[in-house]
Amino acid sequence: MSERPLTPLLDTVHVPADLRKLAPEQLPQLADELRQEVISAVGVTGGHLGSGLGVVELTAAIHYVFNTPDDRLVWDVGHQCYPHKVLTGRRDRIRTLRMGGGLSGFTKRAESEYDPFGAAHSSTSISAALGFAIANKLQGTPGKGIAVIGDGAMSAGMAYEAMNNAREAGNRLVVILNDNDMSIAPPVGGLSAYLARIVSSREFLSVREALKRVARKLPRPLQKAARKTDEFARGMAMGGTLFEELGFYYVGPIDGHNLEQLIPVLENVRDAEEGPILVHVVTKKGKGYAPAENAADKYHGVQKFDVVTGAQAKAPPGPPSYTAVFAKALIAEGERDDRICAITAAMPSGTGLDKFQEAFPDRTFDVGIAEQHAVTFAAGLAAQGMRPFCAIYSTFLQRAYDQVVHDVAIQNLPVRFGIDRAGLVGADGCTHAGSFDVTYLATLPNFVVMAAADEAELVHMVHTCAVHDSGPIAVRYPRGNGTGVALPAVPQRLEIGKGRIVREGHKVAILSLGTRLEEALKAAEALEAKGLSTTVADLRFAKPLDEAMIRRLLSTHEVAVTVEEGAIGGLGAHVLTMASDLGLTDAGLKIRTLRLPDIFQDQDKPEKQYADAGLDADAIVDSVLTALRHNSAGMVGEVRA
Amino acid sequence: MSERPLTPLLDTVHVPADLRKLAPEQLPQLADELRQEVISAVGVTGGHLGSGLGVVELTAAIHYVFNTPDDRLVWDVGHQCYPHKVLTGRRDRIRTLRMGGGLSGFTKRAESEYDPFGAAHSSTSISAALGFAIANKLQGTPGKGIAVIGDGAMSAGMAYEAMNNAREAGNRLVVILNDNDMSIAPPVGGLSAYLARIVSSREFLSVREALKRVARKLPRPLQKAARKTDEFARGMAMGGTLFEELGFYYVGPIDGHNLEQLIPVLENVRDAEEGPILVHVVTKKGKGYAPAENAADKYHGVQKFDVVTGAQAKAPPGPPSYTAVFAKALIAEGERDDRICAITAAMPSGTGLDKFQEAFPDRTFDVGIAEQHAVTFAAGLAAQGMRPFCAIYSTFLQRAYDQVVHDVAIQNLPVRFGIDRAGLVGADGCTHAGSFDVTYLATLPNFVVMAAADEAELVHMVHTCAVHDSGPIAVRYPRGNGTGVALPAVPQRLEIGKGRIVREGHKVAILSLGTRLEEALKAAEALEAKGLSTTVADLRFAKPLDEAMIRRLLSTHEVAVTVEEGAIGGLGAHVLTMASDLGLTDAGLKIRTLRLPDIFQDQDKPEKQYADAGLDADAIVDSVLTALRHNSAGMVGEVRA
Repeated sequence: MSERPLTPLLDTVHVPADLRKLAPEQLPQLADELRQEVISAVGVTGGHLGSGLGVVELTAAIHYVFNTPDDRLVWDVGHQCYPHKVLTGRRDRIRTLRMGGGLSGFTKRAESEYDPFGAAHSSTSISAALGFAIANKLQGTPGKGIAVIGDGAMSAGMAYEAMNNAREAGNRLVVILNDNDMSIAPPVGGLSAYLARIVSSREFLSVREALKRVARKLPRPLQKAARKTDEFARGMAMGGTLFEELGFYYVGPIDGHNLEQLIPVLENVRDAEEGPILVHVVTKKGKGYAPAENAADKYHGVQKFDVVTGAQAKAPPGPPSYTAVFAKALIAEGERDDRICAITAAMPSGTGLDKFQEAFPDRTFDVGIAEQHAVTFAAGLAAQGMRPFCAIYSTFLQRAYDQVVHDVAIQNLPVRFGIDRAGLVGADGCTHAGSFDVTYLATLPNFVVMAAADEAELVHMVHTCAVHDSGPIAVRYPRGNGTGVALPAVPQRLEIGKGRIVREGHKVAILSLGTRLEEALKAAEALEAKGLSTTVADLRFAKPLDEAMIRRLLSTHEVAVTVEEGAIGGLGAHVLTMASDLGLTDAGLKIRTLRLPDIFQDQDKPEKQYADAGLDADAIVDSVLTALRHNSAGMVGEVRA
Repeated sequence: MSERPLTPLLDTVHVPADLRKLAPEQLPQLADELRQEVISAVGVTGGHLGSGLGVVELTAAIHYVFNTPDDRLVWDVGHQCYPHKVLTGRRDRIRTLRMGGGLSGFTKRAESEYDPFGAAHSSTSISAALGFAIANKLQGTPGKGIAVIGDGAMSAGMAYEAMNNAREAGNRLVVILNDNDMSIAPPVGGLSAYLARIVSSREFLSVREALKRVARKLPRPLQKAARKTDEFARGMAMGGTLFEELGFYYVGPIDGHNLEQLIPVLENVRDAEEGPILVHVVTKKGKGYAPAENAADKYHGVQKFDVVTGAQAKAPPGPPSYTAVFAKALIAEGERDDRICAITAAMPSGTGLDKFQEAFPDRTFDVGIAEQHAVTFAAGLAAQGMRPFCAIYSTFLQRAYDQVVHDVAIQNLPVRFGIDRAGLVGADGCTHAGSFDVTYLATLPNFVVMAAADEAELVHMVHTCAVHDSGPIAVRYPRGNGTGVALPAVPQRLEIGKGRIVREGHKVAILSLGTRLEEALKAAEALEAKGLSTTVADLRFAKPLDEAMIRRLLSTHEVAVTVEEGAIGGLGAHVLTMASDLGLTDAGLKIRTLRLPDIFQDQDKPEKQYADAGLDADAIVDSVLTALRHNSAGMVGEVRA
C-alpha cells in the first residue's frame, strides 16, 4: 500500500462550492494535490489512470467556472472521471473504485447529482448534453449542458449526429473537445489528422487572443459591428472550420494544463451570448506522472501499482486470455489464407488485433470508434470475396445492430464476428457486460451463433468461422483467462449446429453454452455424489441448435437444465421453443433455463457476479434438486381433464 | 392503365454495355426516354418516384462512364434505383416493382450483379463502397467503389464514420453526393445548412473549371507543380472544406441534370490518380414530371397514378391508420402535459409527428437521419424531467440499439418509444419489416414492452407511456389501418403487466400480443364451430408478462398457443421461459408459439405475408388441431421412468 499524499488544500474541498471559494492562484496547487490523490487511489484499486490524469486541471477549471450540478456536466466515456469524483463528494470512497459495492469506474446517476448522465460507451455526451440544454430551455430554467469529449470519441458517428443538431441549443451547449491525440490507442482517420493539423499549425491561443474570440459573444452591442468584419477572416483561418460549418463557434486550441488560460477562457464561454461553442483543449494523457507519460498506452487501464516506481501488480500466472488465444488462432488462419482480414473499432489491443496487425498490416483495419462503419465495411469486403473478421466486444456490437441485421444478415454475407467480453465482465460493470448478444443475434435468420466453452474450442471455432462462406457467423467468448486446456495443433472445422457430449449420464442433463461448462461439470460431480447420474453437453451452437441431440437429451433424462452467460431470449428460450415446437412439453418436461437475471448487475469480481446471477455450480445443483423435488401434480395441470 | 411511352433509343439498351455504345449527344434523349419509362412503370405499380426521377441523368452518366458491374455501384437507400434497374437488365420486370414475386423496391444482390450491395436503410453506401474498394486493392484487381448518397443521408453518423475512414481507398473510392435538399422531408441540421451555403454561394462549375479541378489528379507529371500552387487557394475557397478536412478531394457543385457537364466530369473523376473524390451533384427531386415537381414531398412514395394528370389512386376508405391514431393520441397528451415532447429521425410524416409539430413546434424535434442521437437526446431530455416520445419505425430503432441499452435501459430513464411499422410491412419487404423489436427490447432489464391490439388500445397505451415515469416503456403497432373500433374519449392508464381476456372458453387458450388479435378471434370462432371452447387473451405486455393470467390460462386449458408478429425470442419465448421457471411444463403442457418464420420474407401483400408466416386464423386453427392430435406418449417421454 502506498502512503496517502499530503493534500492540505484538497482536504478543504468536498464539493464544487468549496472549490469556488478558492482564489484562482490557488488552483494550480489544488490540481497538484488532486493529481496525487488520484494516483494514490488508483495505485490501490487499479483502473483507468491516464485519462483522469490528463484532465485534472480541466476538471478543476470546469467545476470552478460552471455552476455544477445545475449546469449539467457529461463526461464522455466516464473513465476520466476519477478527479471529478474526488471533487464532487466522493473522495471518501475513491479507494473503492471498480470494487464490488464501491464506486463505479464511470459516471453514474445513482452515485451523485454531479453525474447527471452515466457514460461508459463512447460518444454519447453531446447528445445527452443537448438533451439537458433543450429541456432547460423548454422549462425556462437556467443550466447549460456541458459535454467533455475526447478526440478519439469524435470519430463515432453519434458525436457527429449530435453536433449536426446542436445549433438549436444556442449558448446553452458547450462542447469541450479534450484532444489528447489518443483515446485508448492512437486515433485514426480524417478527423484525427485534421485536429493534428490545427494543433501543429498554430501556437496555443494566448489568453488575450482567446478572450478576444469569445468576448465577441458577450452582450455588448458595440461589438456587433466588429464581429461582422472579422467573421470572414475567422472562417478563412486554418482550423476550426469543420466545426464552424456544423454550426459551432470554435475556440482553440488551448493548453489544457494551463489554469491561467483555462479559467478566463471558460468564464468567457460561460458568459457568451451565442453558441453552441466548441472549446478545443489540448491535454496530455497521463500528465504529471512519469510512468504513465512514458508508457505507450499512457496507463489507460492499469492494475494496482506502486506509486513510486509505477510497477503494476502482475496478473497471477495462468492460462492465456481468450483474447490472446483468439488473436493467435486468427493469425494462423491469416497465414493459411490471404483472404482473411480483421477489423477493429479502436480496440486493437483489447481484441488482440494488434498482434494480427503485426503479422498482416495490410489486412488489418482499425476504423476508430466507429462500430457501424466497421460492420458494413466488413460486409463490403465479404461481398467482394474477402473473409473478414470483425473483432468486437459484445457490448459494443450493440452499436452496430442495424448493420448486423440490414447489411450482413439480410444479405446473408459471410462476415465473421469475434465477440469478446461476452457475459459478465467484472470491474467494468453493467455498461460493459456482454449480456444480450445471443438474444439479439440468434433471433436473426441466416446467422450462426457459437460460444466457446474453453480456449481449445475457441481455436476450433475461429477456424470454423474462417471457412464458413455461406453466411454470417459469430463466436462469443468471455473476458479473462482460459481454463488451461491444451491448444490444438490443428484446428478442426466444427459441423454447424452440432453439439458435443462432454460427460454421459442418464438422469440429469445439463445443456451448457460457453464457458459455464466448467461449472456445469462441477455441478455434475456434485450431483453424481448425490446419486444423480448426470450428462453434460456443450451445445457449442445457440443457432442452429443441435435438434437431434437436444431432443434425445430431453427425452431420456428426468430433468434438464440449460446454462448460458446471457439474458433471457437466448439459448434457454431457443431450446424451450424447439421443445414446444416438437411437442416435447406435451407429456411433461422438467426443464429449467439458467440465465442472467433480469437486472443490470453492478461491478464485482466475476466469480461473485456469476454466483449472484445463479450461474455457478452451486446454483446449477440447486436448480436441478429443486426441479426434481417439484411436485408437479400439486402445482400445475390439476384442472386439466 | 397508362399507355407505354415510345422509347426507341432505350429499347436498344438492355445492359450498360449497350449504353456505352451510344454517342454522348444521344444521352439526353436516352435520359428522356428513361424518365418516361420510370413514370409509366410507377404509374402502374406505385412506389418511390421522386427520388428516381431526380437521378435519371446521373444514373445514365454513371453507367456510361464507369465500368459497372466491375466498378461497384452502391445506391444509398436504394429507393432511387428504378432507372438503374431499367438500365441493368430488369426493364422487362419493372412493372412488378414491390409486388409479390416481383422486383424489390430497393437494390438487392440476388436480383442482379449490378446490385453489388442491397441498401434500403440510409447511409450505408460509403462503408460498403469502401469495402469493395479495399477488397479490390488487396486482391490487386481493378474496380472502384462508387457510393451515391443523398444529402439527407449524410446526416447519419454512419456516413461520417465511413468518410473519416475513406482516405485509405485512394482513387478507388468515389462518393457522389446527390444534393436535392431533401430526402423524404427537408433535411435538418448543420450539414444541410452547410451544403446550402455552398450551392447558394456559387454558380455551378463550368465544364472548363470542373475539368481543371479534376485534371490535376491526372497522370501528367507536369501538373504536379501547378497543383501545389493552387492547393492553398483551393483550401481557402468557400465550400468543400468540410469534406476536404476529412480527406476527400471535393468537386462541385455540378448540375446533375446536365449531361454535357456530368459526363466529362465523371470521366475525369474515373481517371484521376488521387482520391477519394467527393462529387457534389445538385439535382431536383421529381425532375421532369410536373405533378412530382409541384408536390411538397416530390412524390417520394406514391400510389398507382394517372401519368397524364398525376392523380394518385385513392386508398380505399377505412379506419384511420395506426400512425394517425398515434399522432392524435400524442397530441392529446401534449395538450394535457407540457412536458410531453416528441422526437423523430427524419420521418415527421411517416410517424405522424408532423401533426404533433403543428400543435407543438417547440416540443417537436426532427433530428434528421440520426437515430442514435435521437435516442440519447431523448434520454437527456428525460433526465431533465421532460416526458419524451421517440417515434420511430421498428426497423430503424435497430440503428439505436446501443443507445437504448446503454443510455436508456441501464439508467432506467423514462424514454417513451412509439414503435411504428412493427411486424410485416408489405411492399417494402424484409429490410423494413419490424420483426425483432420485442426480442431485442424485452431482453433488457427495466423495459416495459407493449403491443397494441387495435387502435383503441393504442390510445390507452400512448397514455400509459405518457404517465409512466419509472423507466423506459415502448408501444409497438403495425403499418396500415386500424380495425375500425371506436376510439376512447378518455384514455385509460393500463396497469403495467396486466393482460385482458377478450373471450372466455375452457379448452383452447390463444395468447395474443398485438394486432393478430383479430385473427385470433377468427380462429376462436372456427375452433368453437368444431366444438373446441376457446379463450382469447390479449396480453398487451410482452414485458412484464401477466404471470397470474398466463399461469391460470396454461393450467386450465388443454392447449395454449401464443401469437405474435415478431421473430423468435419474443413473446412466445418469454411465456415458455416463465412456464418453465414455474415448473408448469413438468407434468405436461401443450403449448405452441406462433411467430415469424426464421427467414427474411420478401415483399408481398401483408395478408399474404402473414399467411406465409403462419400467423393468420387458419394457421392458428391448424396449430391448435395439430397440437391436440399430437400423440405425446408416442413422441416423447417414452424412456422416462
